[in-house]
Amino acid sequence: MSTPPGVNPDDWEVWRDYFRGARELVAALDRRLQDDAGISHPEYLVILSLWQAPEHRLRTGELAARLTWEKSRVSHQVSRMEARGLVERRECDTDLRGVWVTLTDEGARLFHAASDDHVQAIREWFLDPLDEEEKVVIARVSQRMRALLGTAHDALPPEAEAQDGDAA
Amino acid sequence: MSTPPGVNPDDWEVWRDYFRGARELVAALDRRLQDDAGISHPEYLVILSLWQAPEHRLRTGELAARLTWEKSRVSHQVSRMEARGLVERRECDTDLRGVWVTLTDEGARLFHAASDDHVQAIREWFLDPLDEEEKVVIARVSQRMRALLGTAHDALPPEAEAQDGDAA
Repeated sequence: MSTPPGVNPDDWEVWRDYFRGARELVAALDRRLQDDAGISHPEYLVILSLWQAPEHRLRTGELAARLTWEKSRVSHQVSRMEARGLVERRECDTDLRGVWVTLTDEGARLFHAASDDHVQAIREWFLDPLDEEEKVVIARVSQRMRALLGTAHDALPPEAEAQDGDAA
Repeated sequence: MSTPPGVNPDDWEVWRDYFRGARELVAALDRRLQDDAGISHPEYLVILSLWQAPEHRLRTGELAARLTWEKSRVSHQVSRMEARGLVERRECDTDLRGVWVTLTDEGARLFHAASDDHVQAIREWFLDPLDEEEKVVIARVSQRMRALLGTAHDALPPEAEAQDGDAA
């Protein structure tokens, strides 16, 4: 593939390696989750977020913040997962701030069925081959990029999750 | 977010930084292409592949190989882009190996309109902040991962592209 004008060809190769590697890793994780547990990677991420939340439930907006997805994408994904019995939507009893998305027993069962092999895949394909210098560089580059993109604070920090937990 | 059993918490943070950074970068590139030129990042990748091909055309299977997408995804994407007038499907005159996807004049116009700012965005958010050590590490880690995933040779090497060009 030719290099665009004004870009060093070696630099462009770095971009192509990074972009293709990240895309192919996520595609491979998705296929492995489908084969192993019958769920997609986006479905797994929704189930994981709900599993980690107090009472295994989140408002749609909170779910969008944790996933760093658009709210419309969350709504579509939740509708499909509700049809499969993995999550339920419930009106809030105590306030008007919308609808809770709650993990069902079937969703929790699938989370447990999927997690071990999914984590194993992340170790096998991503974490275990990294040496210490590579881990430091990957973390630094990724964090700096997220700061540049303004996305570094979209997800709730651990403190906020703990407070959610205390309040529940 | 809690760390799965059996994984070092610092390692898990490296995975989370990498995964979120890559996902958010592609989402940001997509939004910027939409705002700047009215096309999505997947549409841009299709147009780019056709632009670089001999006579600006590829068979569906060749397009899938260059994009490292499933053929079904290519078919759906091409159908939507054909409806927008960006590409055309044409039967092969000389062999039975399927259908050519050809870039239209409108597709070529959009490619030129989109490319400068897209490359600028990749530089701004990804390439320019990297120092030389970081570039080496990102390339090495990405290439090793693609080798592990078995995807390193999905795309045609430059030699094959040159031979395509000679044969056309």
